Amino acid sequence: MAVGGALAAPETIGTYTIATLGSHSALQILRGARAEGFATLAICTEASEGIYRRYPFVDQILVLPSFPALVDRQDTLREANAILVPHGSFVAHLGVERNKQLQIPYFGNKHVLDWETNRNAQRHWLERAGLHMPREITSAQEIDCPVIVKLHGARGGSGYFFARDAAEFTARTAGMAAGSYTVQEALIGAPVYLHYFYSLLAERLEFLGADIRYETNVDSLGRLPSENQRGLPIDPSYVVVGNMPLGVRESMLHNVYHLGESVVAVSRMLCPPRGLFGAFCLEGIITPDEQFSVFEISARIVAGTNVALPSSPYADLYYGEPMSTGRRIARELRNAILTGRLAELVE
Amino acid sequence: MAVGGALAAPETIGTYTIATLGSHSALQILRGARAEGFATLAICTEASEGIYRRYPFVDQILVLPSFPALVDRQDTLREANAILVPHGSFVAHLGVERNKQLQIPYFGNKHVLDWETNRNAQRHWLERAGLHMPREITSAQEIDCPVIVKLHGARGGSGYFFARDAAEFTARTAGMAAGSYTVQEALIGAPVYLHYFYSLLAERLEFLGADIRYETNVDSLGRLPSENQRGLPIDPSYVVVGNMPLGVRESMLHNVYHLGESVVAVSRMLCPPRGLFGAFCLEGIITPDEQFSVFEISARIVAGTNVALPSSPYADLYYGEPMSTGRRIARELRNAILTGRLAELVE
Amino acid sequence: MAVGGALAAPETIGTYTIATLGSHSALQILRGARAEGFATLAICTEASEGIYRRYPFVDQILVLPSFPALVDRQDTLREANAILVPHGSFVAHLGVERNKQLQIPYFGNKHVLDWETNRNAQRHWLERAGLHMPREITSAQEIDCPVIVKLHGARGGSGYFFARDAAEFTARTAGMAAGSYTVQEALIGAPVYLHYFYSLLAERLEFLGADIRYETNVDSLGRLPSENQRGLPIDPSYVVVGNMPLGVRESMLHNVYHLGESVVAVSRMLCPPRGLFGAFCLEGIITPDEQFSVFEISARIVAGTNVALPSSPYADLYYGEPMSTGRRIARELRNAILTGRLAELVE
Repeated sequence: MAVGGALAAPETIGTYTIATLGSHSALQILRGARAEGFATLAICTEASEGIYRRYPFVDQILVLPSFPALVDRQDTLREANAILVPHGSFVAHLGVERNKQLQIPYFGNKHVLDWETNRNAQRHWLERAGLHMPREITSAQEIDCPVIVKLHGARGGSGYFFARDAAEFTARTAGMAAGSYTVQEALIGAPVYLHYFYSLLAERLEFLGADIRYETNVDSLGRLPSENQRGLPIDPSYVVVGNMPLGVRESMLHNVYHLGESVVAVSRMLCPPRGLFGAFCLEGIITPDEQFSVFEISARIVAGTNVALPSSPYADLYYGEPMSTGRRIARELRNAILTGRLAELVE
Repeated sequence: MAVGGALAAPETIGTYTIATLGSHSALQILRGARAEGFATLAICTEASEGIYRRYPFVDQILVLPSFPALVDRQDTLREANAILVPHGSFVAHLGVERNKQLQIPYFGNKHVLDWETNRNAQRHWLERAGLHMPREITSAQEIDCPVIVKLHGARGGSGYFFARDAAEFTARTAGMAAGSYTVQEALIGAPVYLHYFYSLLAERLEFLGADIRYETNVDSLGRLPSENQRGLPIDPSYVVVGNMPLGVRESMLHNVYHLGESVVAVSRMLCPPRGLFGAFCLEGIITPDEQFSVFEISARIVAGTNVALPSSPYADLYYGEPMSTGRRIARELRNAILTGRLAELVE
Repeated sequence: MAVGGALAAPETIGTYTIATLGSHSALQILRGARAEGFATLAICTEASEGIYRRYPFVDQILVLPSFPALVDRQDTLREANAILVPHGSFVAHLGVERNKQLQIPYFGNKHVLDWETNRNAQRHWLERAGLHMPREITSAQEIDCPVIVKLHGARGGSGYFFARDAAEFTARTAGMAAGSYTVQEALIGAPVYLHYFYSLLAERLEFLGADIRYETNVDSLGRLPSENQRGLPIDPSYVVVGNMPLGVRESMLHNVYHLGESVVAVSRMLCPPRGLFGAFCLEGIITPDEQFSVFEISARIVAGTNVALPSSPYADLYYGEPMSTGRRIARELRNAILTGRLAELVE
C-alpha cells in the first residue's frame, strides 16, 4: 500500500479498501466507507457472515473459522489494499497482542490499546486528564455505599452486578477469585455516552453526539410498581439490547468538549507523539450536581453511534450532509489520501 | 384498475391513488405515496378529517360517518383508481369480514388476517416458525409467576393489567367473564418492536428499524423512588402515548433476520402461495439471557415506524435516500406497476 | 434596519444578521439562520464563547462580561442589521424588563412575556384556552395527594422536589419563606413536550415534534429494583441532562393541534392583535385516561427541539427538506423580508 507523501487524485480512493471485523458497528463503518468512495470488506466468521451479505455496500467478505485466524489471512487484506478500521469489539475479538501483530495498515494508534485495556492504566490516564471518576474500591471493608461489581472480561453489559452494601457484596462474591472483578462506587444518576472524533488532519475535536444504552432488565424494572416487585426474583442485569439517541443540554457542551480535549491532550504525553485520534467515547454518569463522572473510555467507535445514521444533531452542525461516525472515519482517511498524509493516520 | 401484466411508464404512477384510513400511520403512508409519485386519499371520519386536511400531500379526503361505511362508498375509491394500503388499525376500524368484503385493490394478503387476528392461530403460526413466546396461562391454578392479563379488544395498550400472583389475578378478574381475556406469563425484560418489510418483488426481507413504546403510566413509575410509591394508589397501565427510536446491537441482527424470515416462510405454508409480505412487526421482550420472546405479530405497518421519518438507521443502510416504511410500501407498489406485476401484490 | 413594506430580493437576506444569546438552542437557531442565507451572530459571555467559536456557521461573536451588559452594546447589533431571536433562556439571562428595553428588532411579541413569566397570569391564559392543568395547591391543609414543589427561579429542572403527602411537604418546606415556591398536584403519568410553530405569515399552526426530557436522577431511579433502593439516601431530582425524541400517537394529533390553536387564539385576546407567534412549547403529563394536563407553556423555542436536527418526523411531513425549529424561524423571517412583512414579526 502506498502510504507515502504524494498527493492522490479522487479517483484513486476506490483502489483502497476499508476493512473491519463483521460485528459491532461494521455496517456503519462500511456504509460510510462506500459513501466516501472506498471499496469495502467485512471480515466475518460463519456465524456473522449472513448479515453482511445482505447489504449492497459490502463489496467483499472474508470468511474465517474465527476472528483470530485473521493473523494468518492478512494476504487477502493486503491484496485488497486494505485499511483496517477497528471498532469497540476489536480487542474482544482479537486481543491486544494479536491486534498489534497485524501488519495491515490500521487506523489509529495501537499504543493507546495498552492504556485503554488495562483498568489501572486507564484510570491513570483519565485522572491525569482531570476527569472525575467513580471511586474504585479495593476491599469489602471500604464499602460504605452501593457498588457496581464488574467481572473481568464482561462484555455488552453482562457480568455486572449491583450490591447495596458490604454484606450483599460479600455474599455475592463468595467463591469468586479475588482479582477476577473490580468494584466501583455506584453513582445514582443518569448514564450518558458521549461520542467524539478527533481529527489529526484538522487538529480539531468534534463532538458527534450522545446516546443512552437500553439494557435488559434494568431499563424495564421501573415499569413495575415497587409494590409489584416485592417477592419477585428480580436480579438486575445490564445486558445491552441497543441504544437510544440523546440530545445534551447546550450549557453542558463546554464541559463535553473540555473533557474530550483533556483526554486527547494527556494521551499525547502517554503515547507520543500522536496520542489518541479518530473516534472515541466517554462513558459516564451525570449526577444531580451536574458532575459528569466517567467510568470508562472506549478509544474507538462504539455501538451507540449506530443510532446516528444517517446523521445526528451534532454531526449536522458541522456538516451540511449526513455524517455518521463511520462515514467521518472514512472522510478522514479520504482526506489523508488526497493530501498525501495517510501514513500519519495508520500504523 | 389495470392490474395486468403490461409494463407501465413512470408518468402513469400519478394515475394511481394510494388510499388509507385516516389514523394510526396514515400520514406516513400518504407522505411516502406522494414521494413516489402517487396521488393520495385519506378516508376519514368527521373526527379525524381535520388532521389530514392540514398536510399538503393529502390530495383528496373522503369523509364518512364512520369507517365501516366505507363498504358503501367504494365507488369513490374506484374512481380514484385507488390501492388500499392497510395499517395496524384497519382491523380495529373495519373488522376482518368487512376488510375481506372490500372490492378495492388491497396491498397485502387478506388471508393472513385470519392468522393474525385469532390469538390461537397466531400462536400456532409463531411457534411453528420456532419463535419463543411467553407461556399462555389458561387457569388461575397454573399461575406460578407474574402475569399480564389482556382483555379482548384491548387497543393501544389500554385494557392490559399486571398481576403478581394467582391471588391478585383472582381478585382482579372477579366478575369478568371467562374467555373475555387472555393471560400470559409476564417476562421481566426489555420490550422491543422490530419493523420489517418483505418484498415479494425482490424476494428480500428488509429490517427497517426498531422502537420502544412510551406508555402511560408504566414508563413514568420508575421516576418515583419506591419509598415515594408506598401508599400511593398506583395502578400500572400500558396506554400508548407514542414511540421512541431504538438502535439494536449489531450482534442481534442475525437473530432479527432469522425471526423475520421464519415467520415469512411459515406464512407461505399457512396462506399459500404468497404468505405474508409488505410491512410487519414482531413485538417482544428481550430477557437478560438475550432471548427474544415474541408476544405478538402485527402483519401490517405499525405506528412505531412513525419515529423513522424521514429515515431510520437501518433504512439508511439499504437506501441512499430517506425511506420510511410508508415510502417503502409505495416504492414496492411503484416498482410493481412499472414492471407489470401489481396483480401479485394486491387482491 | 429596513422593516418596511417593500419587497426584497433574495440576495438581500445576507445583509441581515440573526443574533441570539449563546446558550440553550443557539446552535440550532444560528445553523438554521445560515441555512436560510442570513449572517449570524452569537452573543456570549467569556464562559460560553468557546462553544460558539467551534462552529463554522457562526459568523460573529459578541463577547460580554455578562448577558445583561447587552443593553449597553446594542450598537454592535444595530451595525450588523441584527434581528434578535429569543430562546427559552432569554428571560433567565436578561429578565423581562431588560428584554423589553432592548431596541433591536426582536422576533416575537414581547407582551406575551408578561403572561408567560407570571405564574398566575400563565394559568389564567391556559385555563381560558380550555387546557387542563394540574391543580394548584395553596396551603398544606389542601394536600390530599402527592405534590411537586417548584422553587421560584428554578431552572433546568433543579429546585423541584416531590412530596408524598402533607407531612412530607411540611417537613421539607420548614424554614422556606411562604411565597418562595408553588405547589402543584403531582400527576402520575407520562411527561411529554410538544413543539409548535405558529406562522403569522401563513396563518398556520405547525406541529414540529415532541420530546421527553432526560433528568438526573429521576430517570435512572427505575434502574434500581425497589429492594435495592431501600435504605439508600435517594432524593429524587429533576435536573435536565438532555432530551430524547418522541413520536406521538397519530390519534392524539387532533388534540395536539386543538391545544396549540386554543393557546394561540386566547393569546390574541390577551396580547392583541398578534398574540403568540413563532415557536412555542406545551409541557405536560399524559395520564392513563389520555388526558393531557399542561403544567407550563414556553412561548419561545425550547431545548427539546435540539434533538430534531436536521429534521423531525413531523417537520418532514410539512417540508421535503430538513427543517429544524431554528431553521423554521429563519424561514419565517426570510419569507417576511422577501414579501415586505418583516415589521409584522418583530418589535
